[in-house]
Amino acid sequence: MTDFKNQLEADRVMIEGELSQRMDQLSDGLQKPVVDAMKYSLLGGGKRIRGVLVLEFCRLCGGSLSDALPLAAAVEMVHAYSLIHDDLPCMDDDDLRRGKPSCHIAFGEDIALLAGDGLLTYAFETAASSSLEPGLVLQAIQQLAVASGTFGMIGGQVLDIKNMAENLDTLRSMCQMKTGALIRASAKLGCIAAGGDPAELERADLYGQKMGLAFQITDDILDLVGDTALLGKPVGSDQQQGKTTFTTLLPVEAAQVLADELLEESIGMLEPFGDAAAFLIALTRQLAGRRN
Amino acid sequence: MTDFKNQLEADRVMIEGELSQRMDQLSDGLQKPVVDAMKYSLLGGGKRIRGVLVLEFCRLCGGSLSDALPLAAAVEMVHAYSLIHDDLPCMDDDDLRRGKPSCHIAFGEDIALLAGDGLLTYAFETAASSSLEPGLVLQAIQQLAVASGTFGMIGGQVLDIKNMAENLDTLRSMCQMKTGALIRASAKLGCIAAGGDPAELERADLYGQKMGLAFQITDDILDLVGDTALLGKPVGSDQQQGKTTFTTLLPVEAAQVLADELLEESIGMLEPFGDAAAFLIALTRQLAGRRN
Repeated sequence: MTDFKNQLEADRVMIEGELSQRMDQLSDGLQKPVVDAMKYSLLGGGKRIRGVLVLEFCRLCGGSLSDALPLAAAVEMVHAYSLIHDDLPCMDDDDLRRGKPSCHIAFGEDIALLAGDGLLTYAFETAASSSLEPGLVLQAIQQLAVASGTFGMIGGQVLDIKNMAENLDTLRSMCQMKTGALIRASAKLGCIAAGGDPAELERADLYGQKMGLAFQITDDILDLVGDTALLGKPVGSDQQQGKTTFTTLLPVEAAQVLADELLEESIGMLEPFGDAAAFLIALTRQLAGRRN
Repeated sequence: MTDFKNQLEADRVMIEGELSQRMDQLSDGLQKPVVDAMKYSLLGGGKRIRGVLVLEFCRLCGGSLSDALPLAAAVEMVHAYSLIHDDLPCMDDDDLRRGKPSCHIAFGEDIALLAGDGLLTYAFETAASSSLEPGLVLQAIQQLAVASGTFGMIGGQVLDIKNMAENLDTLRSMCQMKTGALIRASAKLGCIAAGGDPAELERADLYGQKMGLAFQITDDILDLVGDTALLGKPVGSDQQQGKTTFTTLLPVEAAQVLADELLEESIGMLEPFGDAAAFLIALTRQLAGRRN
């Protein structure tokens, strides 16, 4: 367990270092207001789960972590942009993010909008700057764009704001698009950085699909029964907004059973990798299996 | 002049066709609301100046137009996204765009925000799908990202909304970032698609820099003296918002002199290309030299 914690911490330190360095490359000239807002949201904490998945799937497929690092940073930038835009008044109108004022509360709506746009744009610039073989970089950029686009994250947002998730099937679709797609892409980007073969990419994809859903269900359970400090946002905020979640459609116990099943299925995708998968298995249990 | 009109029309038809086909590849499934909004803004007219520049600089440097087409489409998607976000209530709060209700008036703020995000994301996916040599595609993606990012379009927006353009120097910086950067990138992307040499890229860059500024000054003059039908937005809307423009800092006649100088300088960058530049020279005179 100490080894696990040390490796997770080492990954996170690598990612934070890369993100800080990338942000320092943006001038604090006349455009300082938007760069400050981008830094506030990108460097203001977060578990870096998606970045860690990029690094660890790269390691799992025998690649070098430094090759995967720009892709890990790009995925974290996309995630940060999505949270800024998601919190805006015309979307979820959330004043709090990770226990701090959300970006538009701290910097105003106009700058928050541009900070989100800036992080999305910089994500692609960062990915494109990778020193991997250009064909692999293009493959990674395409995966990232599809996962972030209308078939992925943005499509999921549409289902969410239009309350189109009315039953378990549509709710599952929404989650797989809104949060699952970027988690799947993270696992795949790690494989791509390592030059992984199609079978490895396929397993990474299925892992991400199942883990992402388990992760979302666990989030819904925490929203119902968790506490604000742990969640970084008011408990029950989804419920108060009248949103359909796994815990409005299922009793908490049944939701937990579903999360546990998906967790085991996702871990099943890692087992063919043998001992090398020990870290990712422990991480998956911690992330998708976390309870209050 | 007939040849010029025919070639311009042929370019536009190519670009419209590519954009329509790309948009048709996005499913009209559950995410239909956002895809409809993206189509409304992307396919709803526009002069396609940036896309035409990509195609014509590719032709000028001896490349094949079909190689440049995905890059032309990507640039037009970035331009369309920037207009959607620019019109939002927290930005310029414009209800009208090209004589039609702006995206958030037609689809609501939440969908308009996501439609902008979707077009930006799809721009990079589209560019990445180019069949050019991967190294060239990555170079194009980097140029597009830098031009759209905090050193380019987004940085220019910050100067604009914070009213940081107070004199001719800062106003010039703002315009070069807000609208000039994407015009420069369009010219460069065309050269890149043709595998142009560094000297050609440099001339394309300088051309775009000067033409973009001439274009903006002409826009400011039209805003003051033009009519709504020609402009697609109410005359004097910039003035009413108390924004600094070339026509608030300079008498109209002096602004026109400046635009004319920049126009001739930009055309000077095209002359080394000889007769092959005839179309682009005519286009530049039409665009940046247009008067009421």
